[in-house]
Formats: sequence, structure tokens, C-alpha cells
Amino acid sequence: MYSVCVRDHFMIAHSFTGDVFGPAQRLHGATYVVDAEFRRPALDADGIVVDIGRAAEALRAVLAVINYRNLDEVSAFKGRNTTTEFLARAIFEGMVGAIERGELGPSAGAVESLRVTLHESHVAWAAFEGPVQPPPSPFSV
Amino acid sequence: MYSVCVRDHFMIAHSFTGDVFGPAQRLHGATYVVDAEFRRPALDADGIVVDIGRAAEALRAVLAVINYRNLDEVSAFKGRNTTTEFLARAIFEGMVGAIERGELGPSAGAVESLRVTLHESHVAWAAFEGPVQPPPSPFSV
Amino acid sequence: MYSVCVRDHFMIAHSFTGDVFGPAQRLHGATYVVDAEFRRPALDADGIVVDIGRAAEALRAVLAVINYRNLDEVSAFKGRNTTTEFLARAIFEGMVGAIERGELGPSAGAVESLRVTLHESHVAWAAFEGPVQPPPSPFSV
Amino acid sequence: MYSVCVRDHFMIAHSFTGDVFGPAQRLHGATYVVDAEFRRPALDADGIVVDIGRAAEALRAVLAVINYRNLDEVSAFKGRNTTTEFLARAIFEGMVGAIERGELGPSAGAVESLRVTLHESHVAWAAFEGPVQPPPSPFSV
Amino acid sequence: MYSVCVRDHFMIAHSFTGDVFGPAQRLHGATYVVDAEFRRPALDADGIVVDIGRAAEALRAVLAVINYRNLDEVSAFKGRNTTTEFLARAIFEGMVGAIERGELGPSAGAVESLRVTLHESHVAWAAFEGPVQPPPSPFSV
Amino acid sequence: MYSVCVRDHFMIAHSFTGDVFGPAQRLHGATYVVDAEFRRPALDADGIVVDIGRAAEALRAVLAVINYRNLDEVSAFKGRNTTTEFLARAIFEGMVGAIERGELGPSAGAVESLRVTLHESHVAWAAFEGPVQPPPSPFSV
Repeated sequence: MYSVCVRDHFMIAHSFTGDVFGPAQRLHGATYVVDAEFRRPALDADGIVVDIGRAAEALRAVLAVINYRNLDEVSAFKGRNTTTEFLARAIFEGMVGAIERGELGPSAGAVESLRVTLHESHVAWAAFEGPVQPPPSPFSV
Repeated sequence: MYSVCVRDHFMIAHSFTGDVFGPAQRLHGATYVVDAEFRRPALDADGIVVDIGRAAEALRAVLAVINYRNLDEVSAFKGRNTTTEFLARAIFEGMVGAIERGELGPSAGAVESLRVTLHESHVAWAAFEGPVQPPPSPFSV
Repeated sequence: MYSVCVRDHFMIAHSFTGDVFGPAQRLHGATYVVDAEFRRPALDADGIVVDIGRAAEALRAVLAVINYRNLDEVSAFKGRNTTTEFLARAIFEGMVGAIERGELGPSAGAVESLRVTLHESHVAWAAFEGPVQPPPSPFSV
Repeated sequence: MYSVCVRDHFMIAHSFTGDVFGPAQRLHGATYVVDAEFRRPALDADGIVVDIGRAAEALRAVLAVINYRNLDEVSAFKGRNTTTEFLARAIFEGMVGAIERGELGPSAGAVESLRVTLHESHVAWAAFEGPVQPPPSPFSV
Repeated sequence: MYSVCVRDHFMIAHSFTGDVFGPAQRLHGATYVVDAEFRRPALDADGIVVDIGRAAEALRAVLAVINYRNLDEVSAFKGRNTTTEFLARAIFEGMVGAIERGELGPSAGAVESLRVTLHESHVAWAAFEGPVQPPPSPFSV
Repeated sequence: MYSVCVRDHFMIAHSFTGDVFGPAQRLHGATYVVDAEFRRPALDADGIVVDIGRAAEALRAVLAVINYRNLDEVSAFKGRNTTTEFLARAIFEGMVGAIERGELGPSAGAVESLRVTLHESHVAWAAFEGPVQPPPSPFSV
């Protein structure tokens, strides 16, 4: 299995609900350094997993929606704790959408799985990984 | 699959038995920077894999048993080479025990697998990963 | 010149005032990984620059005042942009105070200078460094 | 599953063919920091996955073939884009060959899989992982 | 003294002349991860050393001139060994020029010194640091 | 001022004397990742600060004397606490000796200062820096 990974980051404010979070129930924030790893079993005709430039642009576009935001006020996250692991899943979904819309180029349609890792400090990180559903065939009914 | 990982470290002395170890047969030592990665397929009601504060405390407690020790004199390791990969397994077992005793909280019972990585220098690391057996149900006979 | 450095981190929310900040004028946040480097020209009788355990505790105590806070609501920072470089200076002052109050032990009084570095992401950091004024002699008039 | 990983690096020139590569179609170069991770389900009698010294030497030998080279002039890569993911596979094959020739010692024959990761910058890396075929038994017909 | 530092990278091919370089006399290449650290004794009215966004853009522009190039064919470097330390100086000069042309904004004129560090691998780096000459006053004769 | 830095590591056992060290009074150990940074104001005729290959070899030779040792039994350190900062100074002296004996080549005689940093974990490091005395002129009386 081949992998290609690109890195970027975003900076947000948020607060958590639940005793388990202790002082993190207060409004605070985080820098998340994000790794998006794309996996497929064979390279395309150019010898790549995915166009690294387009992958980096797509990741930047997904992060731009939440970058420099207070996540407590983002309607899509209403009623949810935007924990590191939750955000890893949200960014995973955003990247899968970008692949399905063809934003990473046609060969990215062969990407089988994706792992999104968010580093929240030098001592903690979280990740979500899962399969990337192939886009529907243009001939499917 | 979701992951959450916490990092800590410990510093020990030890020696190895066997020609394969060359100069490491002499009494020497190491700093091990430890990553403990917890994995489960779904988040709990709070939106987390495991309480990161309790995970860090549990890791610290497991490492405290061997931190600042000469492992050649730790009876549990008698007759064993305490290689990086061997220690990764030992710490894995310690963390599984902590999960089973409920020290990471009730939701940690849903953790399916664990990966423990020990970085011994900037050019070498070792790891052990495996499933975490679910604790016996209080209603099982 | 000898140096000893300890690392910790804190996580805050804040916003900036001024066109130069672009989208960072919105309420957002950051993780700051903090390095505090203590310098002195000679070691003490124990062979150290400063007690590393007490240095780490003092840094943790200084960071605790602002950790998990919205800095826009911290009265000490009223009317100031809490940029990374500004915060580096604020933490520098906090550490100098800890040294002067003897919280790092008597030998820390020989620390001549201090450098505080805040890493805000994998691609940006800021620092403040300066001399540490010696505490007044108990015999000075 | 146990893992042991060793790190080294190499520095090469190359160019790519294909519009997708943009300015990287020009002759340029890269430093690749290489991680080779060996995996097996049980430790050998010495308590190791593989002799870390021999693993490091074998990796160095594999990299020496291409280190300080213009890959456009390496005949084995003729007509191929020597992308990071392509090179990860090439180094994987080189390491499997070294295992099969016994260069990592007899116990390395129990290594089940291998992951080779090439870091090309602080924001991008690629990897190839796969099973390591066991060497044919000397008694097989 | 305050510092702000931004990071970027570039990828080039080159060769060296001189027996001291051994195999690096052959055409090879490198990824250089570049840190540009700006220093000044006081913050400007916005509370910053330099506009971090403009600093990152200026660094990118300086690196773009040599990125994805064979430095053996860059006329400005004719007859010179483009070693890591030499390139650190060249990028230093490029950044000083950008400051003097006002590309980092008016407040960057107060930057007193600059340090440019190039990481060529996980085990080697080089740097150049020096004063930044203030731009001539518009009223000087 | 130009700098070139090379990195290596060593692994030792030791214990400390003094209440300030707490549990580190017990026999334990450490991995030290070592950075040796050489500084001079101008490059030599080849365009380098120092031959990086010879610098790396010299560092390796200095570290070999203490690598895989119990420092409590090294006579040169008798009665001293081999703290990280103390060892940084010892390695500094070793490297200055190597420069003076010409082991880094003739152009290394122009190195003005040296900084040796020892990383003992992901959260602590120490350093020693100082001038490098020029070797006596062959014509001095």
C-alpha cells in the first residue's frame, strides 16, 4: 500500500461541555497541525498517489472554513463537543467530499482510504481514518 | 477508526545479554519518549475516545514503576533483555491493566486496541500494538 | 555560557485589533508550546544551572494563570494585542518573578538571562530574551 | 504486533515528466529522511524484532546506491518518475532483498511486513508498506 | 530582545567543486527547510515584531527564485559552491532586500538583525545571522 | 556570523548525588541527542564553515569515549554530577581538542565559537557554548 501525506494547520477557539473536560469547559483555543494521509494500492500513470499540490490546496480549502473561528458559533457543530478526535473526523469528511467532487484530480478517485491526524500540542494528538467511498460510476443508474 | 495519543517519557539504566548487542552489553541507559495511542470505532457521548487527562495520568503511573531505575534489578524483568520493543510490550500490558481496572474511566472500556511507541533516539524507535480485551461484564457468570 | 531549557504548553482563545491581523481579528485560539531557557556562566555546587524539576513547576505555575482562558477577558492584557511575541515577554516576566521570589531555589539567583520561546504552529514561533536582574542583597540599604 | 524502526537519509537530483508536476518538471532535488519499520508478531530469543545495528547498516547500503546521484541518469529508473512514493517502494524492495540475502541476520527472516517512509520536507511525506515474503526453505522442492 | 520566526522550504539540485566534498561533487540535490528569524528590541504599535503574513510571503518570494532549480545553472552563483551555509547567507541577503524595499511593511524597518537557518536533513543544518542595515532616511542628504 | 551544526547521540547510565535530584539519585540513564554548532564570521575558500563529514566523525569519536557507559565509573568524572549541562561542557571540551589537533581539517582553525546542546527528552535540554581558542601559531615563541 502506498501513502502520501500533506501537512497544514488551523487555529480556533472553542469550549467543551461535560465535567470530564475540567478547565477546558472554559472558552479557550488550540492550534491544530493537520496531517492528511492518502492511501492506494497502486500508483497512477504519473507515478503518484495523488497530486500533492492539489491535495495541499484541498486541505487548505477544507481548513479555511473553520480557521480563525470560534467553533462554538459554527452552526454545523451545534450541540457537539469539538474535541480533537471529533474535528479529525470532520476534516476527514471534508477531504472525502473534495475527492468526490474531483478537486484532487481524476486519479484521486483511486484513493482507498484516508487518515487525518490533528496534533494539538507536543504531547497529544488524535486521528480518524476510514475508507474513501469511490465516486458513483458515470454509468450507474 | 478514531485514535487519541498521549506522550510522556522515562529514563532508565540497563544492560543486554547476547553478542548481537555489541557495546550495549555494558551497563548503559536510555531516555524513552513514549506515545500511547488508544483506538475505538466510535466516540462516547462526550465526543471523546478516552479522557485525555486520565490517559496521561495512567501512562505516568505505569512509567513511574520503572522510571529512574536500573532495569537489571527489576525482578519482573529477571532474565529478559529489556529491549525497546520488549519495554513497549510491557508498557502496553500496564496500560491495558489500567483500562481494565477502570483508571481511565468507564468509557475507556470501549477502547478496542492500543499502540505503544518508544522513541529511544532521533534515529530509532520501537512499538507494540494489539487488541484490548474488554473487561468481563459485571453480569457474566 | 551554560543553558538549561524546559518545555510545557498552554491553550488559549483571543482576538487581535488592527488591519494587519486580517482574519486573526476574529475570535480564534492557539496552542503555545513554550521553551524556557535559563543561562548562567558557571554551574552551582550540584553541577546544575537550575533545579530542572523546580523550573518545570515554576513554568507550569506561570502558564496556569492564562491556560484555558480567553485572553480578551484577562484584565492584565486589557487594550493589548496578545500576540505570540507579546506573550513571550509576559511569560518571561512571570518567570523572572518566580526566580526573584526564590521559587526555583537559591541557586537560580545566579541565572543571568532567560529566553522564552512560544511555538504557535509547525511554521511559526516567537521569543523574548533578556537579562534577569539579580534579587536585591538582603544586606543592601 | 511488534515494530522496530531505524532512520537515515539521502540526497538526490531528479526531474519529473508530466504537466501535473508543474515546476518540478525542471531538474531539482531533495533530501529524503527515510524510516524503515520492521514488523513481526513475536520477538526472537534475544528479545528483538531485528538487530538494530544490522538494520541500520542494511538501510545505509540500500540508500548508498542512489545517494548523491542524479536519478534521471540511474538506468534502473529509466522512463519512470522517481516520485517520493515511487522511491519508497524502491527502497522497500531493496530492504526486502537485504532481508532475503540474510544481511539483517537469521532472525530477520521472521519479519512479516515492512513500512518505508520518506519525508521530503516538513510538510510532506510518502510511504510504501507490504508483506515481506519469507525466504524459500532450504528443504523446499 | 524579541524574535519572530517563519518557516518554509525549497528543493534544488547542485554539485560541489573540491575534494573535501567527496561524493557530493556529483550532481545531487537537497530539500532545505528554512527558518527566518527577525529580531528587534521593542514591539511596534500593533504589538508585533513584523507582520507574520508578509514575512512568510517575502520568504516565499525569495525562495521562489531558486526553488525547483539546478543551482549549477544559476548565473548569480557562478563559480561558487552553493553549500548550506552559503545559501543561508544568500537568503539572508534576499530577505534584507525585501525589508529595505518595504515588502514586509513599514514597521519591519525597525528589525535590527536576522537569522536564516537551513535544515538540510535531520542531522545537519547551517545558518547565517547579521545586522539589518536601516533603510536610508528619506531626509538624509 | 555563519554556523554549521551536526547531530549525533549517545546512551549512558549514571546517578546523581544531592537531595535536589530526588529519584534521579538512583542509578538510571539517558539518551542524549547532541547538536554541535560551529561558528565563524567568514567561509573558507571552499565555501564552508567546517567539513561537515569530518565534523560528524569528530563528534562521533568524542561521544564514543562515553557511549554505552556507566558514567559513575568513568574516572574523569569522579566526584562530579554528570548532569546534562555538565556533559554539554565536557563534550564542548572534547570538540575543542579535536579542532586543536586538526581532526576537523585546517580550515576549522578559523572556528571562533562552538555551542553543544544535549537533548535529554522531548521536554528538556541543556547546552554549553564558548569561544574556541585558536591553536598557537607555529611561529609563536
